Amino acid sequence: MAEKDLNELFLDTLKDIYYAEKQILKALPKMAKGAESEELKAAFQTHREQTQDQIERLEQIFELLGKPARGVPCEAIKGIIDEGTEIMEDFADSPALDAGILSAAQAVEHYEITRYGTLKTWAQELGMTEAVTLLDQTLQEEKETDALLTRLAEARVNMKAA
Amino acid sequence: MAEKDLNELFLDTLKDIYYAEKQILKALPKMAKGAESEELKAAFQTHREQTQDQIERLEQIFELLGKPARGVPCEAIKGIIDEGTEIMEDFADSPALDAGILSAAQAVEHYEITRYGTLKTWAQELGMTEAVTLLDQTLQEEKETDALLTRLAEARVNMKAA
Repeated sequence: MAEKDLNELFLDTLKDIYYAEKQILKALPKMAKGAESEELKAAFQTHREQTQDQIERLEQIFELLGKPARGVPCEAIKGIIDEGTEIMEDFADSPALDAGILSAAQAVEHYEITRYGTLKTWAQELGMTEAVTLLDQTLQEEKETDALLTRLAEARVNMKAA
Repeated sequence: MAEKDLNELFLDTLKDIYYAEKQILKALPKMAKGAESEELKAAFQTHREQTQDQIERLEQIFELLGKPARGVPCEAIKGIIDEGTEIMEDFADSPALDAGILSAAQAVEHYEITRYGTLKTWAQELGMTEAVTLLDQTLQEEKETDALLTRLAEARVNMKAA
């Protein structure tokens, strides 16, 4: 009984992040196009390739569960991406544009970090060893991307201070 | 020009997190009521008191800027809270209820961590020393709350393994 219910919660959350990753895959080229700095553009291009790998890992987990890979609409990621789009429009000609895009991208990363962290903990509880490995790979990539974005955000500040 | 635009971005994001904190303040008693474990209930009660302090700090920053404290609806936090409410309903009688509530609460914390991290970086860039101190206080509290929730989530797993 307990296992069955946590399995359901795991599957629901897997569908949530699967939908989220697909939305992120669509948003990343727009963010790369919108960004002014070449470093930021490059970061989004690299992250787009990572996102494709991350989607494949999720599909492997659906397969391990014997379930079809299917997303369910996730209002949280839609809200986060919409706020990012709004900033890109409102600050299109502003010197603060990249600051705004960085902020939006970090909100996306934190959403992914929290969801993958949770899924990894539950996979451990459910004894799904292969899923733990796959989820941890993605979790580490998301943390590295967030750290890179933090460095780019701080570099902006230092550049202005110089 | 550059300063003016980053000031606007800072103010927009301040209004976003001010709205978000008020929504979180309303959601926390529901999460405390929904949670089964006493430790989790207590964590939400403590965080509710912290949230009141955090709202006051935001009001101090609005005052430093000479602007009225006013929120703007933030779709991201609405989506995150709605997903949590849905989990509480769907898993109301499930042994996985607390796992679901913990997951929702960590998604809230990560949203706050990313927004306060960004605001602190911008306050540094804008030379707003007092705001940096206030934002950093809140940022540290949010990180501690997230770490506490992670410990509670892992304790669930260990308890079940024992």
